[in-house]
Amino acid sequence: MVGYKFMGKAHSHAYKDVNMFFDMDAEVVMKAICGRDEEGVKAAADKFGWDGYETDWRKLVARDDIDFIDINAPSDAHKEIALAAIAAGKHVFCEKPLALNLSDAREMLEAAEKAGVKHGICFNYRFLPAVQLAKSIIDSGKLGEIHHYRATYLQDWLVDPQTPLAWRLKKEVAGSGAHGDINAHSIDLARFLIGEFDRVVGHNRTFVKERPLLTSSQGLAGQASATEKGEVTVDDATAFLADFKNGAMGIFVASRFATGRKNHNTFEIHGSKGTIRWDLERLNELEVYFREDEPELAGFRRVLATEPQHKYAGNWWPTGHIIGYEHGFVHIVYEFVQHLATNSPFAPTFADGVRCQEVLEAVDLSIERGTWVSVDEV
Amino acid sequence: MVGYKFMGKAHSHAYKDVNMFFDMDAEVVMKAICGRDEEGVKAAADKFGWDGYETDWRKLVARDDIDFIDINAPSDAHKEIALAAIAAGKHVFCEKPLALNLSDAREMLEAAEKAGVKHGICFNYRFLPAVQLAKSIIDSGKLGEIHHYRATYLQDWLVDPQTPLAWRLKKEVAGSGAHGDINAHSIDLARFLIGEFDRVVGHNRTFVKERPLLTSSQGLAGQASATEKGEVTVDDATAFLADFKNGAMGIFVASRFATGRKNHNTFEIHGSKGTIRWDLERLNELEVYFREDEPELAGFRRVLATEPQHKYAGNWWPTGHIIGYEHGFVHIVYEFVQHLATNSPFAPTFADGVRCQEVLEAVDLSIERGTWVSVDEV
Amino acid sequence: MVGYKFMGKAHSHAYKDVNMFFDMDAEVVMKAICGRDEEGVKAAADKFGWDGYETDWRKLVARDDIDFIDINAPSDAHKEIALAAIAAGKHVFCEKPLALNLSDAREMLEAAEKAGVKHGICFNYRFLPAVQLAKSIIDSGKLGEIHHYRATYLQDWLVDPQTPLAWRLKKEVAGSGAHGDINAHSIDLARFLIGEFDRVVGHNRTFVKERPLLTSSQGLAGQASATEKGEVTVDDATAFLADFKNGAMGIFVASRFATGRKNHNTFEIHGSKGTIRWDLERLNELEVYFREDEPELAGFRRVLATEPQHKYAGNWWPTGHIIGYEHGFVHIVYEFVQHLATNSPFAPTFADGVRCQEVLEAVDLSIERGTWVSVDEV
Amino acid sequence: MVGYKFMGKAHSHAYKDVNMFFDMDAEVVMKAICGRDEEGVKAAADKFGWDGYETDWRKLVARDDIDFIDINAPSDAHKEIALAAIAAGKHVFCEKPLALNLSDAREMLEAAEKAGVKHGICFNYRFLPAVQLAKSIIDSGKLGEIHHYRATYLQDWLVDPQTPLAWRLKKEVAGSGAHGDINAHSIDLARFLIGEFDRVVGHNRTFVKERPLLTSSQGLAGQASATEKGEVTVDDATAFLADFKNGAMGIFVASRFATGRKNHNTFEIHGSKGTIRWDLERLNELEVYFREDEPELAGFRRVLATEPQHKYAGNWWPTGHIIGYEHGFVHIVYEFVQHLATNSPFAPTFADGVRCQEVLEAVDLSIERGTWVSVDEV
Repeated sequence: MVGYKFMGKAHSHAYKDVNMFFDMDAEVVMKAICGRDEEGVKAAADKFGWDGYETDWRKLVARDDIDFIDINAPSDAHKEIALAAIAAGKHVFCEKPLALNLSDAREMLEAAEKAGVKHGICFNYRFLPAVQLAKSIIDSGKLGEIHHYRATYLQDWLVDPQTPLAWRLKKEVAGSGAHGDINAHSIDLARFLIGEFDRVVGHNRTFVKERPLLTSSQGLAGQASATEKGEVTVDDATAFLADFKNGAMGIFVASRFATGRKNHNTFEIHGSKGTIRWDLERLNELEVYFREDEPELAGFRRVLATEPQHKYAGNWWPTGHIIGYEHGFVHIVYEFVQHLATNSPFAPTFADGVRCQEVLEAVDLSIERGTWVSVDEV
Repeated sequence: MVGYKFMGKAHSHAYKDVNMFFDMDAEVVMKAICGRDEEGVKAAADKFGWDGYETDWRKLVARDDIDFIDINAPSDAHKEIALAAIAAGKHVFCEKPLALNLSDAREMLEAAEKAGVKHGICFNYRFLPAVQLAKSIIDSGKLGEIHHYRATYLQDWLVDPQTPLAWRLKKEVAGSGAHGDINAHSIDLARFLIGEFDRVVGHNRTFVKERPLLTSSQGLAGQASATEKGEVTVDDATAFLADFKNGAMGIFVASRFATGRKNHNTFEIHGSKGTIRWDLERLNELEVYFREDEPELAGFRRVLATEPQHKYAGNWWPTGHIIGYEHGFVHIVYEFVQHLATNSPFAPTFADGVRCQEVLEAVDLSIERGTWVSVDEV
Repeated sequence: MVGYKFMGKAHSHAYKDVNMFFDMDAEVVMKAICGRDEEGVKAAADKFGWDGYETDWRKLVARDDIDFIDINAPSDAHKEIALAAIAAGKHVFCEKPLALNLSDAREMLEAAEKAGVKHGICFNYRFLPAVQLAKSIIDSGKLGEIHHYRATYLQDWLVDPQTPLAWRLKKEVAGSGAHGDINAHSIDLARFLIGEFDRVVGHNRTFVKERPLLTSSQGLAGQASATEKGEVTVDDATAFLADFKNGAMGIFVASRFATGRKNHNTFEIHGSKGTIRWDLERLNELEVYFREDEPELAGFRRVLATEPQHKYAGNWWPTGHIIGYEHGFVHIVYEFVQHLATNSPFAPTFADGVRCQEVLEAVDLSIERGTWVSVDEV
Repeated sequence: MVGYKFMGKAHSHAYKDVNMFFDMDAEVVMKAICGRDEEGVKAAADKFGWDGYETDWRKLVARDDIDFIDINAPSDAHKEIALAAIAAGKHVFCEKPLALNLSDAREMLEAAEKAGVKHGICFNYRFLPAVQLAKSIIDSGKLGEIHHYRATYLQDWLVDPQTPLAWRLKKEVAGSGAHGDINAHSIDLARFLIGEFDRVVGHNRTFVKERPLLTSSQGLAGQASATEKGEVTVDDATAFLADFKNGAMGIFVASRFATGRKNHNTFEIHGSKGTIRWDLERLNELEVYFREDEPELAGFRRVLATEPQHKYAGNWWPTGHIIGYEHGFVHIVYEFVQHLATNSPFAPTFADGVRCQEVLEAVDLSIERGTWVSVDEV
């Protein structure tokens, strides 16, 4: 695994726990974690339960005892590492976004397909029980024809102008701001749930143009410099309208300036027969409404997706005992490792990463042009 | 009508509007309102739309042009006025509590029955659409056998020790505190929804024993005296356990010290097939749960009781346009006037007032004794 | 008053009750209601409490005993009646939309200003206590600089394809569909709360193109023809992005196809210091979040706007006793009549109706063009 | 560790993950898990990550390489194992209830104190961030004097009469039903948050007296016998009133018949200055209300206890990324292991287990007697 910060911790936890809660056709062995700072990566290896560590990802990629590589380093490093891993015949599991731009993402997909290695991208929210339930409701036809899709992904960690200039705020490292970081999740969920985008039109803002430099690299929690400032080169917020290929209307908004909203990743989907609504801050719950209920008794149901019937839920605790954010990673790792072991179907792959990137770039192009842009055009 | 303060306003509004929203077999004519303070009652008559006023209820009772008397004066006056009205052959509609104690309440019921006049007591919450829906769900058997009944009626207007000593805090005028004022509503709703009480055991508190005297009599909003204090002679809060005759377990709590709860009149009823929950602060909504729903899709439904199918709702606005607190008075007045005009069935009557009083007094007796008390015993 | 259906009932109720709950400098006298169908309007006059009725609005306008005219007939009649009333020197209070299109609306505004009569438009939601609280929070600076405005107005009465072709679905009578009917409310609230629109881009849908004809004209509740169908000539749903002149980003969606949402008129406003959220289905509540709260205790507060401190709330019931949809009409009528009587400031006027229409038409133009459209351009 | 079913899994997970997320003064080494069924316990050892296993707890207790024993076998085995472990000088961490009855519990406490070993009882809910926040709010005086404590612990897994007779329904193994299993949690939380009980009075029910026997011992999920039935010898539901030593009034209800409620462990605490409310089904959230907030802006705040300021939350994920049920076990294990390693203060100990048992038995005694019972009396 390359990367040992926020995502490194979440992924490590998943590898550590997956065998305990799931019956698997392969046992995960946590060989080595990799990062440039030896002290930091060594500590992470100990803490997270890795057998060893490397400070150069090239060495990691070259090791014979490793079958697959998990890449969760900052976004600008994804492409180079992935291409090398693919070249070495390793299976690759990559954090989103796949790459800094669409052409890089396409290159990665092509390489992986050519090499015949298995590949996945970590759109972890697909794998929460309530989201799986949403998917099964839609696939069963219980919502009917889809008319509306509305998504928000709202955070507020940038509303304080003293929040320092982390790597996520620099275009050359992160590629994009709220759009690529969190709209990406919303776009993937929409594709997963109701299908492909046709065209989009958007707008964005960088509300605070300059921020204090970061004096240490301790992730999001680093100290702000009292004196030096740097330019924010990504968006603080991006919103867009979408037409889907199935005729549905869509609205998406991602912001890091949504005061009071901490991780408000929501979708609401209206169909001709019903509606569903979900919110990551209450990720165990799905609200559902069915028109076929008796009119005087119809209403939004709060389904607590912790029943044995709910996918993955039975692997954890009895009904009503909720799970948390990190469980999505355990589930996606379970599915990907099963895919490696048994060739069971797996999505999302690099192809989904590319598709997501197409929508992101179509939105950016629409902002540039001030018009609707067809996703197929980018 | 006797009384022109908070309840006088609510009742007047109901008489004023009922013909507009309901098709009735009789038209309400608002003849006269009565109160001791001529200036105050004259102003109320003008404001609320009464044809005239009286300052002595004996005169009101003696008038030939009046068919029925609405009594919403302070509780200690109910009995005398009601007995006189009954003696004069008037139909009587009385605010709760019927009287200061059970024997008075029984005397009033007996007098009304003997005289053959029609009588009602203003347990207005029965007549809200969501409560009517609760009733119809239970009566239809959709909840199955009832196991649990839990009620709260929580307010916080006394938690400030400077809140003055209003008439509602004096035993000789009000009869009781939170218990008689708001537990009375919960007891009536429980009887309406699931039936009679078997036995009870309770406890109570007067958290603040002395309060500033009221310098003017402007209802709850009067000024507190800076210097003089008086003793609070009623309970601030009363809670009790109940066994129902149908075998259900019950819990009731009423408090005027429930910080942050303004009018939190709730019930939650668990049956073998389903559950319902209601809250007066969101009085248009009923939460319902049915076990027969598919396990993976079962959940509490938030039913917005504003559909034409919901009783009384169709008389107001289109679906989703909510109604408020005072609408319950319009509905009960509608039913009572129809009862007068057409002899249609009507409850709650004085008999329900007596039943409620029995439960209240059984609880008080249980507090005195420190044991369970059978309601039939009082 | 011209009109006696849904809005006629809501307005009549307001005129009937306003003097009871508010201290006013003028007493409302309900002279006459007007409609083309004599039987219908006579019944409405009786029911709603009008002194008399007219079947020709020209006669109403000509009457000397009438100071102001309330127009709530179908939208296509607004202009002609309003111009005649203005010409007769009457003050005019008009339902929204002001007219079928922007040029008509402008003509009406110009006529009213020239004649020097007082004019108002019935954007009733401005006058709910929780919305007034939102306004006062924003004006006090407690939200800081506004970054995001998100509005929904969602209903579902058209999702059933058998719902008949009411007048609201015909462009020649209604002017517009969900856009003009309910986005209009959202646009007005946004202007009221955070100011003027700069530019917009939108999309819309008519999901069901043909519907059964209506066999009777009993409003929305009429019977559908079993055999004959007609074309729906307005939008079922319209959504748009907006840039505000103050730099805020906006998102608006109105739909009559949002299954399960009955009257889901919401706004959420993120500022640099706080956030507020409101929902018409729980119209007594305002959710507020303040960044200045201690971090470990910050959270969205559910404020129940029923305290005496909340505008208009003190005129009704004690704290915690909620009000309903129609109360907004009472409040706007109170303000407009006070405006007539004392020349107190009043908004929204016809000027606000024009401004709203400008945004509506800019959105429609953006849909035609597929690009952003400046509101000043229309 | 003795026990390898539901609690065995939860505890194992805690030992496995605690070093990853917390900086500790000792590393947990998972030596051996113990159970009577060799096949089952061997599988559990593999799955849960234990170095080895034992089939006889006497052997486990005798091992020199083990410093402390975790007991989560069925309740009837707690005492014997704990006494043996204590005799062997091991530290002991025991699932609740400590024992089947009060005298056994007291014997265990006495033995542990005499032997000078460290002891803990697994009241895991104390250790959730939102509950810790509740505690710190109360301790800081922000709620003022406590007036009311209301707790529910509601589940519905027994409402189906076909749910089989698991060990938790037999008095000789479980000691008690809903009362000892889930009221125990509520009692402990109340003691943790507001202090000791003075006196209690309660009632209970066994709604379904006979149930199908269990054909296999696969925990709660076992198969019901089609033919044989056995008697349920514990309560399905128990509710009680309480007076606290600090003068507060309390209400507690535990039920396994609360249809629709899956794990509805809640408390609501009203003080003279504020109120807090918590619900295990949304365990990351705490609702708080402060009277000192400006009256027009006061309301229940939904605090998402995922900020770095919230105890334990910073060890997991960024703000807004929620945690689940099992995290409470990680936190209690962290505190207990730190207690072993550094002698840091730790509660709850066996003394808390005894105190909880006293309240449980006082309630049972009150049910027998039909009167209030002083907790000091038992």
